[in-house]
Amino acid sequence: MNKVDQTIERIQIPSEATRNEALRYLDTLTKPPGSLGRLEELAVQLAGITGVLPLTVMKKAVVVMAADHGVCEEGVSAFPQEVTPQMVMNFLNGGAAINVLSRQAGADVICVDIGVNADMEHEALLSRKVRRGTGNIARGEAMSREEAIASMSHGISIVEELVQKGYQLFATGEMGIGNTTPSAALLSVLTGIDVELAVGRGTGIDDNGLKRKQDTVKKAIEVNSPDPSDPLDALSKLGGLEIAGLVGVILGAAVHGCPVVIDGFIASIAALIAVRLAPLSREYMIPSHISHENGHRLLLEQLGLEPMMDLKMRLGEGTGAALIFNLIDAAVLIMNEMATFDGAGISRERSPD
Amino acid sequence: MNKVDQTIERIQIPSEATRNEALRYLDTLTKPPGSLGRLEELAVQLAGITGVLPLTVMKKAVVVMAADHGVCEEGVSAFPQEVTPQMVMNFLNGGAAINVLSRQAGADVICVDIGVNADMEHEALLSRKVRRGTGNIARGEAMSREEAIASMSHGISIVEELVQKGYQLFATGEMGIGNTTPSAALLSVLTGIDVELAVGRGTGIDDNGLKRKQDTVKKAIEVNSPDPSDPLDALSKLGGLEIAGLVGVILGAAVHGCPVVIDGFIASIAALIAVRLAPLSREYMIPSHISHENGHRLLLEQLGLEPMMDLKMRLGEGTGAALIFNLIDAAVLIMNEMATFDGAGISRERSPD
Repeated sequence: MNKVDQTIERIQIPSEATRNEALRYLDTLTKPPGSLGRLEELAVQLAGITGVLPLTVMKKAVVVMAADHGVCEEGVSAFPQEVTPQMVMNFLNGGAAINVLSRQAGADVICVDIGVNADMEHEALLSRKVRRGTGNIARGEAMSREEAIASMSHGISIVEELVQKGYQLFATGEMGIGNTTPSAALLSVLTGIDVELAVGRGTGIDDNGLKRKQDTVKKAIEVNSPDPSDPLDALSKLGGLEIAGLVGVILGAAVHGCPVVIDGFIASIAALIAVRLAPLSREYMIPSHISHENGHRLLLEQLGLEPMMDLKMRLGEGTGAALIFNLIDAAVLIMNEMATFDGAGISRERSPD
Repeated sequence: MNKVDQTIERIQIPSEATRNEALRYLDTLTKPPGSLGRLEELAVQLAGITGVLPLTVMKKAVVVMAADHGVCEEGVSAFPQEVTPQMVMNFLNGGAAINVLSRQAGADVICVDIGVNADMEHEALLSRKVRRGTGNIARGEAMSREEAIASMSHGISIVEELVQKGYQLFATGEMGIGNTTPSAALLSVLTGIDVELAVGRGTGIDDNGLKRKQDTVKKAIEVNSPDPSDPLDALSKLGGLEIAGLVGVILGAAVHGCPVVIDGFIASIAALIAVRLAPLSREYMIPSHISHENGHRLLLEQLGLEPMMDLKMRLGEGTGAALIFNLIDAAVLIMNEMATFDGAGISRERSPD
């Protein structure tokens, strides 16, 4: 059995007992029952996932998987492919949006070269290059099944190492010029929705570019005829190496009993594949924002994840997920720092008449 | 001219030049133009309001106005009126949700007794009691026009004092058992929407309670026949002292060139009255969440404010607004810490074909 299958088999059901304990405790705090809405839901979810009360503020990492996409040949992105390694250097130098938002949230950015089409070296870069970019999916498969499994295995191993270093809460980030194209193709194949609904403008293509991107996605599905009932087949034929890597990150977080925040469109595709491979992994996912990318709302509905923020963001990198870290900390602090009705001497609500 | 009228007259238009400068600078940063969505909009709004670049992380205060409501006699709330002073003590002792969330955001909670129906003393409490709770609006006016003006003036003065102490960013909080009832009445009168749409379950009344609350609001409007074209008339006949106080906080923030975050249903009613009195005050408002209270969405639409979060919260106190402080800091940090395309040596997008 490979590392991915072993991981899937070992994912546990979150603790119902600890969830219930958290629910009961929340109703003793000085607020109308349930009035903190999703902050309370978050606290209950964290209790179930970690299985321990009191909750603690967790050490956080945004794992940013970077890779290139052969399909860029088709002119599907507003940016040239060289921007992938350039942005990886920007991450490593601390100057990208994800660095700024992670610093604010007290999180570390872990940058992984899982398939950049350039030679990259930096002491802070995790080099796990499976291949130099995917093949052009408009002409053939993105990668072999073995390469998809290798990418997922790297994601799992990276989380394993980070857990050993004390990290307890993860967010999914990615960088890869062109990667909304394979994501849209995967969304259409795995859910059956129309290519037109699945394809969006990515970093900002115009109407001509959008039409070309839709045609490219249709061609990619036609050329590769992926099996919709086999997520690994779809992933290897249409996917990106960073998408596969993020599937591994999600499965790795789940198996270690760690919550994982799902960022925007591309990370949500990784989440969909993770759920198809391991339905229990869904319990460990925390939704973040609804991105401005076309197919994201449909995708979140498929996942049963309801976004907490609508900031019209469409940057990726993990930026939407990083903004949720503060809400997760808020949920922990509400549990740990609020007064109880009895402790503060406050009258309870009257029984309904 | 009274303090309120003087304040309204002195509110300035935000700086268009500084807004444009911020817009131009945002497009030099290493991200597709506009891809950080509302974080970028926030940065531009802050630039216009403060008129100064670079932006700085601002000193923050949540002003929590507390008051009681004579209409509680009609049985419109799930909690007894004694909870208002009890919760004020909870705020002063740091044990309420707003304390926890403000601490996390690095903000101070400023608690104001603007009309609690109890004798209150605490070294940290600002005592600005205009009267001991409003009259029962189902039987007569909430307060006199002079009392409404006095409450607003206190709000303005408090912001004035806080600005002198270095505070630059405000959020609107409130506490007052029963205060969704006057808020719903004001919403219905000022916008013409049906009472059934304006009234919600507040802290959690059942179906019988909801019907009673709707009937009470209808009666209050009938008994008082407020003039929809005179916001001050509506406010004094139907309002709460804390609502009037928050109108003052908003006008005070605007006149001092400070952004003010609008919390949930009750704070948004104060915002609506502020906009009716001083349309320019709208420019200084930052929206926060969409609350779970019935009329809030309609109210935000009337205000032209689009919520950034949907956390199904319905607690008030300023809790939704406090959660937005982190996003405001994020907008500032994005402007100040991100690398530029030129600085990081990153290729620009191609021109569209």
